[in-house]
Amino acid sequence: MKGIAADKLDANIRPLGQLEESFILATDAEGLLLIDQHAAHERVLFDKYRRLEESRRPESQNLLVPETFDLTPAQAASFGEVADELEWLGFSLTRLSGRTIAVRAVPADLPPAEARNLLAEILDTVDAEKRGRARETLRDEIAASLACHAAIKVNTALTREKMRWLIDRLLLTSSPTTCPHGRPAILRLTKRDIERGFQRP
Amino acid sequence: MKGIAADKLDANIRPLGQLEESFILATDAEGLLLIDQHAAHERVLFDKYRRLEESRRPESQNLLVPETFDLTPAQAASFGEVADELEWLGFSLTRLSGRTIAVRAVPADLPPAEARNLLAEILDTVDAEKRGRARETLRDEIAASLACHAAIKVNTALTREKMRWLIDRLLLTSSPTTCPHGRPAILRLTKRDIERGFQRP
Repeated sequence: MKGIAADKLDANIRPLGQLEESFILATDAEGLLLIDQHAAHERVLFDKYRRLEESRRPESQNLLVPETFDLTPAQAASFGEVADELEWLGFSLTRLSGRTIAVRAVPADLPPAEARNLLAEILDTVDAEKRGRARETLRDEIAASLACHAAIKVNTALTREKMRWLIDRLLLTSSPTTCPHGRPAILRLTKRDIERGFQRP
Repeated sequence: MKGIAADKLDANIRPLGQLEESFILATDAEGLLLIDQHAAHERVLFDKYRRLEESRRPESQNLLVPETFDLTPAQAASFGEVADELEWLGFSLTRLSGRTIAVRAVPADLPPAEARNLLAEILDTVDAEKRGRARETLRDEIAASLACHAAIKVNTALTREKMRWLIDRLLLTSSPTTCPHGRPAILRLTKRDIERGFQRP
């Protein structure tokens, strides 16, 4: 079982089912594929968020009732650093008095319940690392955080159609075999690996 | 990917589909299973043929037209050694003049087109090894040869029902994880193996 290079993927990937409601089992011409549903969706979303910089058309969902968050002093100090990026990704944020912010909208893919943790995570990251870092790196990190919070989680049942959709979208990304953090999104077991396992010549 | 011990199998094996029309992909509580459909069916048939010795109720299929085979001198010399075993397994054989035998019936599981090759294989084996061998070993070898020729081949599409049937029957055998020749019939990839492959903690 090993991660595979993207140039070995073809478009004829056929989902067979889910394992542990976390991994998609699929076949292609080379043998068996295992796809980490969370990692794969992270990759799809990350690529989408990075493309936003070019197209600048974020998708938002308005919250029925705006939520207010109280920031720590460090988070409040970081807020100005990333406010533009967050708006870009689909947040609508207003700074109220003191260290309180109001969230009126969140990115379309993000479960609203994840918004609080995601904002805290991003602000903490910025605080810890903001000195001397390139704007590109910051954007990547924010996009990766958002992708992680918005992606399908493990232990989630998927329909065959959803598996099909995820695989099709994954194949269109810049790097279908890795998640934005560089971990494998797809593992392959080749026909030869399997035949060897069964001691077939 | 490794062979697994029989004591680790439980009855909750769920077939997901076929890989390369040769291997059944299935899941159980421990993770992913790959089942070699030919090896699994060999095991099922072998156990059935060995049980025949106790129950003595072979299942035969009569041929529409009896076939005659010409044996080599060595095969003809071996014939007497195994004629009883072959009848036991469901063959109906008559020795005609010289080195010719007539086949009137073959074991129920055996595709009739396989009968000629199977008989030649068994008689050649007996000729090569007959001296000083225990009757038990000979029976095992004949049963293994018949099982191999009668078993589902690789590159054969199976319905979900047939996969289900094969798994259920396999679990009832004396050694569900190996074929009669001792090669693996089932390989397992545990949840932990998979998580490690994806670099999940």
